[in-house]
Amino acid sequence: MFSNVHIVLVNTSHPGNIGSTARAMKTMGFKNLSLVSPKEFPSKKADALSVGCSDILDEAKLFTDLPSAIEGSNINIGLSARSRRASIPSMSINECVAFIINNNNLDINVIFGNESSGLSNQELLVCDYIVSLPTHNDYTSLNLSAAVQILTYELYKNSNLAPDVNLKQSKPALSKERNYFIQSLISLLEYTNFITRKNHISLTKKIHILFNKSNLENEEVNMLMGIIKSIKNKLKK
Amino acid sequence: MFSNVHIVLVNTSHPGNIGSTARAMKTMGFKNLSLVSPKEFPSKKADALSVGCSDILDEAKLFTDLPSAIEGSNINIGLSARSRRASIPSMSINECVAFIINNNNLDINVIFGNESSGLSNQELLVCDYIVSLPTHNDYTSLNLSAAVQILTYELYKNSNLAPDVNLKQSKPALSKERNYFIQSLISLLEYTNFITRKNHISLTKKIHILFNKSNLENEEVNMLMGIIKSIKNKLKK
Repeated sequence: MFSNVHIVLVNTSHPGNIGSTARAMKTMGFKNLSLVSPKEFPSKKADALSVGCSDILDEAKLFTDLPSAIEGSNINIGLSARSRRASIPSMSINECVAFIINNNNLDINVIFGNESSGLSNQELLVCDYIVSLPTHNDYTSLNLSAAVQILTYELYKNSNLAPDVNLKQSKPALSKERNYFIQSLISLLEYTNFITRKNHISLTKKIHILFNKSNLENEEVNMLMGIIKSIKNKLKK
Repeated sequence: MFSNVHIVLVNTSHPGNIGSTARAMKTMGFKNLSLVSPKEFPSKKADALSVGCSDILDEAKLFTDLPSAIEGSNINIGLSARSRRASIPSMSINECVAFIINNNNLDINVIFGNESSGLSNQELLVCDYIVSLPTHNDYTSLNLSAAVQILTYELYKNSNLAPDVNLKQSKPALSKERNYFIQSLISLLEYTNFITRKNHISLTKKIHILFNKSNLENEEVNMLMGIIKSIKNKLKK
């Protein structure tokens, strides 16, 4: 579970962002947080914003400089909103995600700079790769923890850890059941003279299309059959 | 620029989340914010966290209930962390992104519930689709503005609006230049007796591999040639 990936925050000014980062990490299955000379930590503001993620703050590692924070790892990936330095290789977010997921044997730091100034030129020099998140030209200033959220979300979503949240729990009705209902409805509407010999072809077609595109479930067909039955009973009286 | 998409926050408790949401939206090119009975708005906390995005807060539309907020639009997509209701169709985030991008002729609301309780059953009933963002089983509680950030990021990234942030501005050196450098280095190392007749084949191979995998740029080759020249000059003295 991304145990080889470390989120590294450098020179963070607002302790609230450290708390929000812990929460962003935990929602996506990340645990390792390294803090390089944060302005205020530990901090009540960080605790307040980490809602239920104090374990990550408790186990966060504190460093006085970036080289100490990264010395035990293999690869350093810096997040930067700045235009590319010609000399440091850049990766798109998709390349970065593929790289991290395919290299779970390596110890990897993902490094985020100060809220206002980002990673300095000096800090960028320790990076093997630079990643810029796509943002709109009119306003490119992502919040620090929002950037961590996007990165960790992309990693989690594209890992095999993410359960398929799209599991359709609904069960479409069998064609047999659906057709039985549609025939019952048509019979009823012939009885009420809504469907006549003249409009029979066009109306039965419309009714089929309407209920076919509704992806009816078993229970819904049962309910619709109940409706028809109740109308029929009322009509008999 | 997503002018047909409205981000709708329902019963938001913390005004700071409204400010963070405005910032999240603007970084991804979204402008339309609708607020349904927020606990506190306008709010100084919202202003503080919207850093540079006061235009979105200024133009936010206030509603007293969800039906009024959505009445002018075609499609309502609710975000929900809850397990699927059998009766409301669910979409994965990828399906949701494809749907919104492919339907820019429709007016679409993307609806986010209260921070603690999410969208109520009543609120979910107005939704045509429900989307759940993938989160780790251990801790699924995404911050409200983090959820907005992920959704708007996915839409922006997958739209044709996002510039290719991965434009490689670096220009690899020509093979001719690279080989000229490698040959110069080999000559130098023969002269310093690092390369001998015995190890010639193995060492020249290693040197070729090392500098080939470095993806040398023009300027880097020039620098390396300068290094060789300076060493040669020193050796002559």
